[in-house]
Amino acid sequence: MSRARIPDEFELIARYLVPLAEDRSGALGLVDDAAVLSVSPGCEIVATTDALVEGVHFRSDDPADLIGRKLLRVNLSDLAAMGARPVAYLLVLSLPEGTSSEWLEGLTRGLAADQKAFGLALVGGDTVATSGPVVLTVTALGEVAAGQALERSGGRAGDRIYVSGTLGDAALGLAALEGRLGRLDEDRRAALANRYRLPEPRLALGRRLVGLAHAVIDVSDGLVADLGHICETSRLGAVIEADKVPLSDAARKALDADPGLLSSVLTGGDDYELAFTVASDDEPRVSALAKELNLPLTAVGRLVEGAGVRVVDDKGADLPLTATGYRHFRTAT
Amino acid sequence: MSRARIPDEFELIARYLVPLAEDRSGALGLVDDAAVLSVSPGCEIVATTDALVEGVHFRSDDPADLIGRKLLRVNLSDLAAMGARPVAYLLVLSLPEGTSSEWLEGLTRGLAADQKAFGLALVGGDTVATSGPVVLTVTALGEVAAGQALERSGGRAGDRIYVSGTLGDAALGLAALEGRLGRLDEDRRAALANRYRLPEPRLALGRRLVGLAHAVIDVSDGLVADLGHICETSRLGAVIEADKVPLSDAARKALDADPGLLSSVLTGGDDYELAFTVASDDEPRVSALAKELNLPLTAVGRLVEGAGVRVVDDKGADLPLTATGYRHFRTAT
Repeated sequence: MSRARIPDEFELIARYLVPLAEDRSGALGLVDDAAVLSVSPGCEIVATTDALVEGVHFRSDDPADLIGRKLLRVNLSDLAAMGARPVAYLLVLSLPEGTSSEWLEGLTRGLAADQKAFGLALVGGDTVATSGPVVLTVTALGEVAAGQALERSGGRAGDRIYVSGTLGDAALGLAALEGRLGRLDEDRRAALANRYRLPEPRLALGRRLVGLAHAVIDVSDGLVADLGHICETSRLGAVIEADKVPLSDAARKALDADPGLLSSVLTGGDDYELAFTVASDDEPRVSALAKELNLPLTAVGRLVEGAGVRVVDDKGADLPLTATGYRHFRTAT
Repeated sequence: MSRARIPDEFELIARYLVPLAEDRSGALGLVDDAAVLSVSPGCEIVATTDALVEGVHFRSDDPADLIGRKLLRVNLSDLAAMGARPVAYLLVLSLPEGTSSEWLEGLTRGLAADQKAFGLALVGGDTVATSGPVVLTVTALGEVAAGQALERSGGRAGDRIYVSGTLGDAALGLAALEGRLGRLDEDRRAALANRYRLPEPRLALGRRLVGLAHAVIDVSDGLVADLGHICETSRLGAVIEADKVPLSDAARKALDADPGLLSSVLTGGDDYELAFTVASDDEPRVSALAKELNLPLTAVGRLVEGAGVRVVDDKGADLPLTATGYRHFRTAT
């Protein structure tokens, strides 16, 4: 067994990572073995971890700064789904020999931009050599008022199911990047690709759903699969009305050209919108919240007694789907 | 870009990971997006993350349960160096196609044994597919009384430098595993290899050093390099007396056969003992602590004005070393 001796670890840390820790005292300038974080009175800690693998979750030729931003955002999306406020993150870089300074500079520039935008800082990490593809791991820590964290398991029969923003853009964006949306104009292809590369964690929405939503999840594996998680843990079924699913202009145009893409919209992952359920009495509160946040919140179906997720057309007939979500080695929690 | 579709993620989680989360309510059975952890009154959170890469930090043919235990222990060692009590951990598995059920069963059996032994539980994680070697990442969370976390930077000129246990065993153990200690008998080679494969995080010692030690670090990169970190952050120098460095019986025999191995002892990593500095007045307290914990605590030198780490022989003459530590993509904090 040989131990890889590639770019000097301490130089790499000093040059690229310490600047990311400068605005937080708990990180101790990344000089200690671990970070110390104080917790606000009356709060609990929320912890989540997600990894991105080159060639699986991002393309080798994706801009490095966007990879850094996506890495942080997929983790922040998990905090959003718990109703938590981001506080800090830890970063593990598994890098192959020959990783360029330019790439690292781009990655950390993206991290710097988004940690500032979302109000958290790097507090620790590890850098390791690998003979394989780049593996990037973030553990994000947040805070939530004690006992107030949102869960997947609180759904009740009769709840209305809502989703934020628009769905399917990321799956269609990946298709566009892979050259599979040739009939769509370039601007719309670019808009979809951007949604794949740079999801928007719905942190403000998540925090406002505390005390309103019964069950919440972020749509990372696809609407059908993720609602399936709510159904399983809530011991209920769900019915989604396909024509209610909110689409962006670009996605609508793509579906007009190829109606078969509806399956991608309903089962494709990586949108990182929130899906949540509320009592039907609370629909006016959701409408008011959508206005306040200037974010579409669309009712797409309801929870029912039973099990499993059904998708129906405007006449109530079951729609067949070609996939039920993205199942591979992925989000454990 | 193709998305790898290997063993079903949800099945993998249900079969191997959920059992690791069963003894902790905050994990919510690994069904939510993130874990919720309450913090004891008056305490702060300590967070650290370390990754192990196949072919770099462990050998492909190492027993999987020992890999799992080492993965947890290298992280616990960082908590020990901060004086923290372990609470929970998150786990990211980056697995190549063809990873066997037996290997995963072994890995999680090792994790189960050690999380029980050290009093923490799995609360979240992620599983991803990779085309490269196995990459295992743990983020460990602990607690420490507010303001009491141990640091590297508190050393004072005149402090005595102590180390726990014995040093060099892990580096010599790796040499033994690589067939480079042919002159040593088999039992001693096995004893050294075991120390490489299964470090002992000094958690009890770390917690007792709160209020006693000025600066603490765990010896992961080698004594010279790690004392160098204390020196840098404390803005001091250090002098180590080579003949005071505590050796196991097996290491002593190896050095008798090949005195050149002294460099490996002083600069080899992976021992995960604690190195710490105390006021010379406090030496009796250290002796009492060693007795109480039934753990050798040996004075090996002192902090001095200046910079850098000097190693001297029993006549005070500088000893040349062939390496100053293990510098590659490694422990960021």
